[in-house]
Amino acid sequence: MSQVSAPLAPGSTIGVLGGGQLGRMLALAAARLGFDVAILTPETDSPASRVAARTIVADYADPQALAELAGLASVVTYEFENVPVAAVQALIGHGVEVAPGALALATAQDRVVEKTFFRDAGVPTVDFVAIDSAADIVAGLARLGAPALLKTRREGYDGKGQAWVADAADAEAAFARIGGRPAILEARATFRRELSVIAARGRDGAVAAYPLSENHHQDGVLRLSRAPADAIDATRAEALQIAQRTLERLDYVGVAGIELFEDVAGHLLVNEFAPRVHNSGHWTLDACQVDQFEQHIRAVAGWPLGLTDMFAAAEMENLLGEAVLDWAALAADPTVRLWLYGKREAVPGRKMGHLTRLKTGASGV
Amino acid sequence: MSQVSAPLAPGSTIGVLGGGQLGRMLALAAARLGFDVAILTPETDSPASRVAARTIVADYADPQALAELAGLASVVTYEFENVPVAAVQALIGHGVEVAPGALALATAQDRVVEKTFFRDAGVPTVDFVAIDSAADIVAGLARLGAPALLKTRREGYDGKGQAWVADAADAEAAFARIGGRPAILEARATFRRELSVIAARGRDGAVAAYPLSENHHQDGVLRLSRAPADAIDATRAEALQIAQRTLERLDYVGVAGIELFEDVAGHLLVNEFAPRVHNSGHWTLDACQVDQFEQHIRAVAGWPLGLTDMFAAAEMENLLGEAVLDWAALAADPTVRLWLYGKREAVPGRKMGHLTRLKTGASGV
Repeated sequence: MSQVSAPLAPGSTIGVLGGGQLGRMLALAAARLGFDVAILTPETDSPASRVAARTIVADYADPQALAELAGLASVVTYEFENVPVAAVQALIGHGVEVAPGALALATAQDRVVEKTFFRDAGVPTVDFVAIDSAADIVAGLARLGAPALLKTRREGYDGKGQAWVADAADAEAAFARIGGRPAILEARATFRRELSVIAARGRDGAVAAYPLSENHHQDGVLRLSRAPADAIDATRAEALQIAQRTLERLDYVGVAGIELFEDVAGHLLVNEFAPRVHNSGHWTLDACQVDQFEQHIRAVAGWPLGLTDMFAAAEMENLLGEAVLDWAALAADPTVRLWLYGKREAVPGRKMGHLTRLKTGASGV
Repeated sequence: MSQVSAPLAPGSTIGVLGGGQLGRMLALAAARLGFDVAILTPETDSPASRVAARTIVADYADPQALAELAGLASVVTYEFENVPVAAVQALIGHGVEVAPGALALATAQDRVVEKTFFRDAGVPTVDFVAIDSAADIVAGLARLGAPALLKTRREGYDGKGQAWVADAADAEAAFARIGGRPAILEARATFRRELSVIAARGRDGAVAAYPLSENHHQDGVLRLSRAPADAIDATRAEALQIAQRTLERLDYVGVAGIELFEDVAGHLLVNEFAPRVHNSGHWTLDACQVDQFEQHIRAVAGWPLGLTDMFAAAEMENLLGEAVLDWAALAADPTVRLWLYGKREAVPGRKMGHLTRLKTGASGV
């Protein structure tokens, strides 16, 4: 069970590990509620630091930096799942609450641990095998069928650290392609489309989910999310049940993004779990009463969760790399609600911003 | 005519004179669009500075501080109308665009100049007389009738620097009550209620107004705004015409708040004009696609104005002084959308935050 502590008073400082766009949007949401934000990031001049009251530029593992953050902040959260668990434990050791907790973080950091967690929780995922060698891949293919998807256990995101294995003859080469690191081999999922559910759990144990989002990726990177996804009631109920079971089992506090595969019958498999605000929930910023960033701040501050109601159906599109150079045309389009992240260089593929188009009066809301 | 310059690129810095809640909410809006913000304020640890990339703590008249701000920012705006016009002129001298411009600022700073401006523009106001002595008050009462409202020409706000004059015998005492300063005597307006129109003008000359707001004051301080005000078409058309005429005549760039008196027939008088985002427009934050803060940033950055459409009818309530101590109850009320300003002390009467209740599905939107 969560420890139910008093809600954090406005004027308190919330710490955020990570200085990217998610940290930036968390900082903006925290400011709305009267909180100060302290960012810890290795990056100088980060997007989040420019809207935060305090920034500590240091490695996440730097003991002095963690002690400094603990001295400033009453509660600490993080904007990405590759923060070292040891850093979170150090903060807890300094008497700071960290939300989401170390269990959620550790679970999300290792794909084998993550999928095992879901299997144990009775939440469907694709079938999988832990991999430590090319021989494991050959054995895995025999069990899962070919082709199968090989992913590093740790630190892959946006399609990095992944390789398809065509057949047993490809095992050595595929293992080499991901750097010969500890990995997971996943059966090929048969699915109609990718969905996600953005859900939050408060310190009081309440769970609130946003309407389902339908997501489109390209080269492993999210391009487009549409919400609410046009899904049957049974699918929506299944997603809510998955979110509830996941967040409760992890004694989770905060917003999480759960990526799902939907089969032709409307049944769901969990693809991946992110213990943080999620790119496929950015449409909530413009389409919902309480967006995912405010919801996350509410949860980690021990405030009651807010309403997840939508004002309008929404379509969110990421602005990757040079797509952001179209900002002037996008600013002139009244159907576009624009968010730009303040990143200095439009490196190819970098998430520079996003836009949301609202479909007021659309059905399904 | 406005000089039409290219829209300001994201990543640029926007300067804001003033570090209070309006500067804070402007900074949050600027961040959304990818801008950095530099605040100039005499206050240390100001609400705006805690969400801004840079802060210069200095007097507004400090030449070195103004030069420093001009070195950082491409465009400068302000969050309150008592910024010295000389500071704005110094910034312009450094080659920085300031919006709204010096004319709007100078007009708003002196109630006699302001009312004369409206009279010359053919915009109705209450009748008035310039006052430099108690004898002027006696003469003014003879023309305007008694009682009449005496206000300092400069620097009054939220009901400060104002006194009702009951009759000629009260002239000396009333003049003393406002410190014997240059003043304006205003005829008592006969009005049914107070309204305001929040309108913006872009660098391209386009004007966009939000739906009318109905405002309730207490002790000269705004307590409550309801939008859209339930007004007849003719009244709404009159408000729009007043806004257009005012902003065009001032070659205005940015958001302005125009306070209005409505008579029993639905006709309007201008009470006061604020060359900035306005407390009676805070409901736009939660009820509109583009709120007044983003709209102001769009305008001063030379971006096209955004949509002023409302998602829902709204009621905004200021949290004054110790009212903010109820934050935990307000945070737990799902009908409340809360904004807290990060002010350290709940001094009686101080604007500590506000809340908005949305009436989704209500008529009139």
